[in-house]
Amino acid sequence: MAKDTKPRRPRAETPKGFRDYFGADVTERKAMLDRIAAVYHRYGFDPLETSAVETLDALGKYLPDVDRPNAGVFGWQEEDGDWVALRYDLTAPLARVAAQYRNELPTPYRRYAMGPVWRNEKPGPGRFRQFYQCDADTVGAASVAADGEICAMLADALEAVGIERGDYIVRVNNRKVLDGVLDAVAATGLNKGERLLEKPSMANVLRYTAEDSDLRDDVLRTIDKFDKVGEVGVRELLGRGRLDASGAFIDGLGLASEQIEPIVAFLTSKGATNTDTLANLRSAVRGSQTGEEGVDELGLLAAQLAAQGYGPDRIVIDPSVVRGLGYYTGPVFEAELTFEILDEKGRPRQFGSVAGGGRYDGLVERFTGQKMPATGVSIGVDRLLAALRAKGRAGQTMQGPVIVTVMDRDRMADYQAMVGELRAAGVRAEVYLGNPKNFGNQLKYADRRGSPVAVIQGGDEAARDVVQIKDLVLGAKIAESASLEEWKSQPAQFEAPRAELVAQVKRLLARNGD
Amino acid sequence: MAKDTKPRRPRAETPKGFRDYFGADVTERKAMLDRIAAVYHRYGFDPLETSAVETLDALGKYLPDVDRPNAGVFGWQEEDGDWVALRYDLTAPLARVAAQYRNELPTPYRRYAMGPVWRNEKPGPGRFRQFYQCDADTVGAASVAADGEICAMLADALEAVGIERGDYIVRVNNRKVLDGVLDAVAATGLNKGERLLEKPSMANVLRYTAEDSDLRDDVLRTIDKFDKVGEVGVRELLGRGRLDASGAFIDGLGLASEQIEPIVAFLTSKGATNTDTLANLRSAVRGSQTGEEGVDELGLLAAQLAAQGYGPDRIVIDPSVVRGLGYYTGPVFEAELTFEILDEKGRPRQFGSVAGGGRYDGLVERFTGQKMPATGVSIGVDRLLAALRAKGRAGQTMQGPVIVTVMDRDRMADYQAMVGELRAAGVRAEVYLGNPKNFGNQLKYADRRGSPVAVIQGGDEAARDVVQIKDLVLGAKIAESASLEEWKSQPAQFEAPRAELVAQVKRLLARNGD
Repeated sequence: MAKDTKPRRPRAETPKGFRDYFGADVTERKAMLDRIAAVYHRYGFDPLETSAVETLDALGKYLPDVDRPNAGVFGWQEEDGDWVALRYDLTAPLARVAAQYRNELPTPYRRYAMGPVWRNEKPGPGRFRQFYQCDADTVGAASVAADGEICAMLADALEAVGIERGDYIVRVNNRKVLDGVLDAVAATGLNKGERLLEKPSMANVLRYTAEDSDLRDDVLRTIDKFDKVGEVGVRELLGRGRLDASGAFIDGLGLASEQIEPIVAFLTSKGATNTDTLANLRSAVRGSQTGEEGVDELGLLAAQLAAQGYGPDRIVIDPSVVRGLGYYTGPVFEAELTFEILDEKGRPRQFGSVAGGGRYDGLVERFTGQKMPATGVSIGVDRLLAALRAKGRAGQTMQGPVIVTVMDRDRMADYQAMVGELRAAGVRAEVYLGNPKNFGNQLKYADRRGSPVAVIQGGDEAARDVVQIKDLVLGAKIAESASLEEWKSQPAQFEAPRAELVAQVKRLLARNGD
Repeated sequence: MAKDTKPRRPRAETPKGFRDYFGADVTERKAMLDRIAAVYHRYGFDPLETSAVETLDALGKYLPDVDRPNAGVFGWQEEDGDWVALRYDLTAPLARVAAQYRNELPTPYRRYAMGPVWRNEKPGPGRFRQFYQCDADTVGAASVAADGEICAMLADALEAVGIERGDYIVRVNNRKVLDGVLDAVAATGLNKGERLLEKPSMANVLRYTAEDSDLRDDVLRTIDKFDKVGEVGVRELLGRGRLDASGAFIDGLGLASEQIEPIVAFLTSKGATNTDTLANLRSAVRGSQTGEEGVDELGLLAAQLAAQGYGPDRIVIDPSVVRGLGYYTGPVFEAELTFEILDEKGRPRQFGSVAGGGRYDGLVERFTGQKMPATGVSIGVDRLLAALRAKGRAGQTMQGPVIVTVMDRDRMADYQAMVGELRAAGVRAEVYLGNPKNFGNQLKYADRRGSPVAVIQGGDEAARDVVQIKDLVLGAKIAESASLEEWKSQPAQFEAPRAELVAQVKRLLARNGD
């Protein structure tokens, strides 16, 4: 490579589809995750942190015959020829860990994990290629009690971060019930419907982003749209197809109406109470052993949860919950926020889903060949944080530091002593480190930082051993609106003995509600 | 791609050079980082979290004429042809952000960042390709006060995580002093020494991992080995070369002894006090304006720090601190832990460096073409955590949950109610979710989890509305060593009314020091 004598300037740009988080964006997310982690901890879950990189083999992507795989993941080839990639979720690494350390880990193994995941998708507005997930899973517990625990913990976690009871609902379904319905449909043997007899194969389990998933998966995905397109929409999409809002025609799956109706009946079988719903479901799956097992599990789950105080006001059976992923094998659940927010066009709409999960008894078996039941939940961190902001539970601006201004460059040590004393008293404080020449710039800086207080000591004040203390919060209020009376009774700037600096600043901060 | 009818099993393996962190590994690191973040916050630093991915352009790696760049970074080519890579440190992303958002960010901009970075190095024992860094930097402040603030904050951070005063020292030097010495050496114009006249070019600034760095960088790297190889070793490495401990011959830089001696004199110019050291340095750089500037800066830095109470027992001038990176332009510093630990062979040795940093006034300019001073520190998270463990300040096993055992599968709701009550009282608790058939397995599980207490309620106890409470901590002690007397006075298992479950468990936990 030839050396440039004068290198061109690189562009300072966040790579496409990625983003930078500043200040409160970071601390608010962290505070939220800390609260969730405390709930997980109380439930006996242990943290696990795997690296960002996994072998492509473990992630379960199958290489196409091209140079590098780029369907959904960021991957590259190692010197030794192995392919590795950034994880696209936290479940695949858990399955790998559960298999790899199966002799060391306790059984059941309850773990939580929080961290970024990466998806190699076309960047678009609001679509990011790195985002946070926050998962909790139990590996090695086959009973419905494990699923129920996850649901209860999810409800507790939502309340812990500030979503009030009544503002969320955890909706629960069971994939076996749906399988039972589809078995019944498949038994009709009509058209493409016969393909429904195929069980999802392990090879398909992780290929849920690929195009060639089978019809059963197509049906799952279609049902998953119930929330958006409603009963009529689902009926059209299962059958001939549908003209969507934009005028585009979406091909349907081509099922016959004898096949469609039981599916729609199942989807709409939610009754006024869990008992009603269970009765509806039982008749929908009649004759399918799998289906009846699923209904039994749902009944037991609801009963156990109700006994623990998680009634249908918080966790409810809802047959329209499907969860698109092909790998679920039993209970599936979804947490939805039920309050309304305004969309981009100012129209009210429900906030919607912030978490989901379910039982996936096949993922660990993929590695070991041995059955290993597992169940878990993933919280969409960015969405939940957005919800908290919408409810005013986050998003307060971070308290800026007290700014000690620099009037006299040669007395930097004096100013440093002031911030040192303030910090020792637990007050966030800094000395102005820019060019101190222009005092206006120092105050502009304090404003930009959201500083509550500025401290000023020129030569004159130093000689008299005093400081000027400027209440920037009050100052801003006065500038905005206050009458002359208020200004007089509460001066925004006052002089105090140097020895009283810390006490006076703390008094001001307390008054301003810091 | 042909479909496998029966997919082969993937290996469950952590990719080479990466690792998985379990339980206390995660929580201890988090606790340490939280304490450090609290110090950074108090100093007015704001968090910044950039994504893991940066454009290769911004990272400053220059592409060789091959398929993909792999010198030190994990990179890949995007669909649109751009190359991107995982960040290898937290400084390069900061430089990019400081340039990109220069109109929005306050000046100076104080930020901290914590997170993983990635290095594409050959994996080896103890060498990992993903590790944590924890940085704090100030961009836009040219004065020595900014460097001093970083040093003071570093000392505070070390104390905040549990490194006691006296167990660490922050050693400070100034790259300009060294430049002054090298100027003087270069003025001799001998041999390869004339190359020392070249200033590090911006193109070299980020190529510090590459082979073709200039002699000045080679000298820096050699001096950096002073700690390891001592004065004689450095003299050899600057000259003809050196036979290392393993018997291998390491080529020297080929400097003449007239060039070597001033460098060694500089290296060993640390006096009994800062004042002595400054006097020694001043004579070592005589005639070099850059060198004298450096000595002045060191003097001011030490004076300001001393005025804030950070005397030479905590922060000291030490000319042997060099910091290998070519991009430093002014003060450089390094935090060393001074207590001894035992190495792998049981020999005592000093723990060594856990953090380092300095002033790098050229990194942001690389993007903007405009001067933008910056200074900062990076803490080696894994090393500092290892130090805390060595001092017994971390590494306590995490308190396991209270285990409610399952004697009767049909009464799962009862057991769930018990853990629910315990959790509501703030007690970490879980119900056993494995197969309950073998009670011994339940107790083995409790043992594996480090559970302090097990709760047992069979049908008989349920009928009498009582529970058995088993003190597993005491039980373990009795099994180990206790006499019969102790056993009698403090039974490791007792019966309590069901209504007293929470109170009794809390009493036990309090006794066991939870």
